[in-house]
Amino acid sequence: MWMDTKVEVEEGGRRSSSRWWRVTGGLLLCTGDMEHLDKFMQEMPFVLQLAEWGLRGVSRVIFANNPLSGALILATLCWASPWQGLLGTLGVLASTLTAVITGQDSAEVSGGLHGFNGMLVSLLMGVFSSAGDWYWWLLLPVCLGSVLCIFLYTGLSPLLDRWDLPVAVFPFNILILLYLLCTGPDNPYFPHYLTTPPGLPEHNGTELMAVEVTRGILLGVGQIFACEALGPSLLILGAVLLYSPLLVAHALLGSAVGTLAGLSVAVRHDSLYSGLSGFNGALGCMAIGELFFTYSWRTHLFAIASAFISAYSDIALSNLLGTVGLPACSWASTLTVTLMTGSLAAYRIPIGQVMAPEHNLRSRSEWEAADRESTDV
Amino acid sequence: MWMDTKVEVEEGGRRSSSRWWRVTGGLLLCTGDMEHLDKFMQEMPFVLQLAEWGLRGVSRVIFANNPLSGALILATLCWASPWQGLLGTLGVLASTLTAVITGQDSAEVSGGLHGFNGMLVSLLMGVFSSAGDWYWWLLLPVCLGSVLCIFLYTGLSPLLDRWDLPVAVFPFNILILLYLLCTGPDNPYFPHYLTTPPGLPEHNGTELMAVEVTRGILLGVGQIFACEALGPSLLILGAVLLYSPLLVAHALLGSAVGTLAGLSVAVRHDSLYSGLSGFNGALGCMAIGELFFTYSWRTHLFAIASAFISAYSDIALSNLLGTVGLPACSWASTLTVTLMTGSLAAYRIPIGQVMAPEHNLRSRSEWEAADRESTDV
Amino acid sequence: MWMDTKVEVEEGGRRSSSRWWRVTGGLLLCTGDMEHLDKFMQEMPFVLQLAEWGLRGVSRVIFANNPLSGALILATLCWASPWQGLLGTLGVLASTLTAVITGQDSAEVSGGLHGFNGMLVSLLMGVFSSAGDWYWWLLLPVCLGSVLCIFLYTGLSPLLDRWDLPVAVFPFNILILLYLLCTGPDNPYFPHYLTTPPGLPEHNGTELMAVEVTRGILLGVGQIFACEALGPSLLILGAVLLYSPLLVAHALLGSAVGTLAGLSVAVRHDSLYSGLSGFNGALGCMAIGELFFTYSWRTHLFAIASAFISAYSDIALSNLLGTVGLPACSWASTLTVTLMTGSLAAYRIPIGQVMAPEHNLRSRSEWEAADRESTDV
Repeated sequence: MWMDTKVEVEEGGRRSSSRWWRVTGGLLLCTGDMEHLDKFMQEMPFVLQLAEWGLRGVSRVIFANNPLSGALILATLCWASPWQGLLGTLGVLASTLTAVITGQDSAEVSGGLHGFNGMLVSLLMGVFSSAGDWYWWLLLPVCLGSVLCIFLYTGLSPLLDRWDLPVAVFPFNILILLYLLCTGPDNPYFPHYLTTPPGLPEHNGTELMAVEVTRGILLGVGQIFACEALGPSLLILGAVLLYSPLLVAHALLGSAVGTLAGLSVAVRHDSLYSGLSGFNGALGCMAIGELFFTYSWRTHLFAIASAFISAYSDIALSNLLGTVGLPACSWASTLTVTLMTGSLAAYRIPIGQVMAPEHNLRSRSEWEAADRESTDV
Repeated sequence: MWMDTKVEVEEGGRRSSSRWWRVTGGLLLCTGDMEHLDKFMQEMPFVLQLAEWGLRGVSRVIFANNPLSGALILATLCWASPWQGLLGTLGVLASTLTAVITGQDSAEVSGGLHGFNGMLVSLLMGVFSSAGDWYWWLLLPVCLGSVLCIFLYTGLSPLLDRWDLPVAVFPFNILILLYLLCTGPDNPYFPHYLTTPPGLPEHNGTELMAVEVTRGILLGVGQIFACEALGPSLLILGAVLLYSPLLVAHALLGSAVGTLAGLSVAVRHDSLYSGLSGFNGALGCMAIGELFFTYSWRTHLFAIASAFISAYSDIALSNLLGTVGLPACSWASTLTVTLMTGSLAAYRIPIGQVMAPEHNLRSRSEWEAADRESTDV
Repeated sequence: MWMDTKVEVEEGGRRSSSRWWRVTGGLLLCTGDMEHLDKFMQEMPFVLQLAEWGLRGVSRVIFANNPLSGALILATLCWASPWQGLLGTLGVLASTLTAVITGQDSAEVSGGLHGFNGMLVSLLMGVFSSAGDWYWWLLLPVCLGSVLCIFLYTGLSPLLDRWDLPVAVFPFNILILLYLLCTGPDNPYFPHYLTTPPGLPEHNGTELMAVEVTRGILLGVGQIFACEALGPSLLILGAVLLYSPLLVAHALLGSAVGTLAGLSVAVRHDSLYSGLSGFNGALGCMAIGELFFTYSWRTHLFAIASAFISAYSDIALSNLLGTVGLPACSWASTLTVTLMTGSLAAYRIPIGQVMAPEHNLRSRSEWEAADRESTDV
């Protein structure tokens, strides 16, 4: 029912004009990729278009592609911390604008593909800064970093194209490490916190609390936006639900798998409670399970495997980078998904046709129906 | 004589029925790639087939491809340490089975190409574990690591295929580092030893003993299987001799070159005595000199160069990774061979046709004979 | 006027036979790529040819391709330090000879493309050695390193060819790190200095001196040859001026940009004064601005961006590698230029046709004239 949004709405309108149908229809119009918006936006002024591209970019961070999800996420971030909200908005706008000015592919720009790296760089610069909120000088590296994301994107794109791999969040991961390395913890202009590796043994061995761990699984979704509060994490989950309920299921499943992986090698409790153990698993699970592949039990298995590999790699990389005080960001899930995309090429949906998982599901059943028909004839 | 095994045996059988011929014939049937076994095995039950694939996988670690060599090596490992023998067996079976289940190319599976990474991961996990032998929980990461080897293999394969490069032991090298990084030295479940970099200066400057260094050259071959005793190392050399005497010569030459390289930059005596300085040289020398290329004086030179580069790179990488307590495994020889394979593409035997060096040698002389004939005509 | 060297000289000769024209003509013959020399050299004995290839290799370090510039630079290095001059000469000759012996492409050899990596490795080995000048044992690693450069070059070449990228100074950067890692600071045979990361906070906070910083910008050009004196740096600039005045402008611009980047993240004063902050910016600016692309305002912008990215990456990498006492060499600019080359493929001059920037400029205006004519017709 969810999948055939437009068709159902039209039919529903014809069948009955009750108030219920109109409300559901309106809601359903806001779900999925909202492709119908594109035609409508083409006649709008540039500022509104830019806003739509930016909001799509915000939702792209969590593998969604829906401006309303993006708006809800941005509002949530502003609620959790207005300063972080400002940085995120600036980042996504700066990188989208740079992409427009340097003349990148317009389909990519309007799909928000040039916004999410800039947003992530900005958010993480804000989170790691030890100069406190509203430290205005931080806007300089934030803008520079967002602009450089586009340069890195266009530089990496031809390299990865050889294997038909997406650039994903490689620019963000590279830039945030370079920024943190450039400015040490004691930098007079841009000081930042050192990261503690998750494998560091704890001396005051407290009991592990099940409630806190469960909370950590939910926080794992918020950590994708570097947000460590329960309310905002739930709202972000709600925003993803608007795009696709299947994606929410995979996000929670991946976060749980990541937390399980963390438990199995005894990482610090802190890391479990804050959701840091879970977010790479969530990213790995969402990417494989939903966006790249059609839905089948095999894809489901691969998604869980991807979550486990992402989570273990993240612990390993965090321990390695933690020796020099650096975070592992989402290197683990990005590398895992890149490698798995290569190995699962046979099951993959062509990059241009990736849409909301529900849509992919429908296409698959449609394809099969089409296949059956052609066989019958 | 060695090369024309089958032909000679048949002819020998016809020419004389003396006991000597039968013994030699039987022995010669067990050397080289033992291709004749494949046809015979196809009618055997699956368990026996799996055993043959596994044993081929064991011998693949040291660039051989002969189930009897594999059996001899496995028996040697069990003799040196029953626990290590168990881990190795489990690793090679787990990864070969995973390859069968996930439907990898059957020629690759039956050639043992999906077994050696799993075996190496398992052996090294056992060697680095500081929880002692018969610590049954270790079987969990051993199985998981062996299974993941196949995932990494299929992920890396399309990437390296672009340059027609083999995946080699990249999965093993990646996974063992990730495992050691995941579980630090003080991990409550899976503790492990820290590695000391070979370049660390020695304070109690003892004299270098020539006998011990010579012993280290022999141990360098055993270290390929993480085995540090003289008897087993000699038996492993014997198992390789069964496959190809040329390979043994290159293994010893490479180990000697590696030890020489270690002497030239004054690594710790310990590293020379234990064979750790030699095994990357041995791997580099064997890979270039025998498996990838036909035999000529130029290949011989390249093999020695490869041994030197592998050995020096290994010292460098060991010193680098040693700063965070990690071993360099066989990264040095794997990278060196990968690079040299690219630069020596002109001399290379196509991947599918690589066989025992003696066979390659014969093919080359046959090719040349064929060339001459075609020119004459 | 500068650009149409040969044409002008011939015309000048016809129009007037005054002494002024002959002097200018002679001077102009020595500028640019000096292609006319190639035909002349083909009949010379091998030793003279080798010398020309070597000198072109010396000038290639700083993106020039002119044997006279090379000779001037080599003389400058000998003046600054005879020992360094000897090492550099040995390095460039050893690697060029290896390329000749192993049968590399003759056009690449005669263009000096197989000399500059060897020279850089040798110079840096000398600079980092803490055993003092005229430590003759150092000639062993110098020769070995120069020879290995060719092996690495031929190994990396097919890998990078897939994206039509040049090998650049990757072999040098890899080999010098391997050498420094092999031989630690306390090595009994080849001891070397540890590198201090530029981001280390300074405890005795002295005032920053503008004069010294300006001097650092000039020294940034000398640092490309690991030379830290003002006189030689100016002479090197003179040698580049002989090849192309535009290249000099970009070298100074890049060095200034690099110093600015260093100031913006408060690196150690020492790093600014010695030119170490500037040289990666200079390399990045020269490579993008001049050699790979035709001259336009857009290329100019990209060159400045490249200088900034190179400089910031260099600070980041220096801080990272500095934690284990290693220098970042020119990794930053090499990686930046490699990535940008990929992203700016549309503006790029095909590798085989890259010449002095003035020549590229002329070709572009010629192309445009040709275009206009064909449109008019």
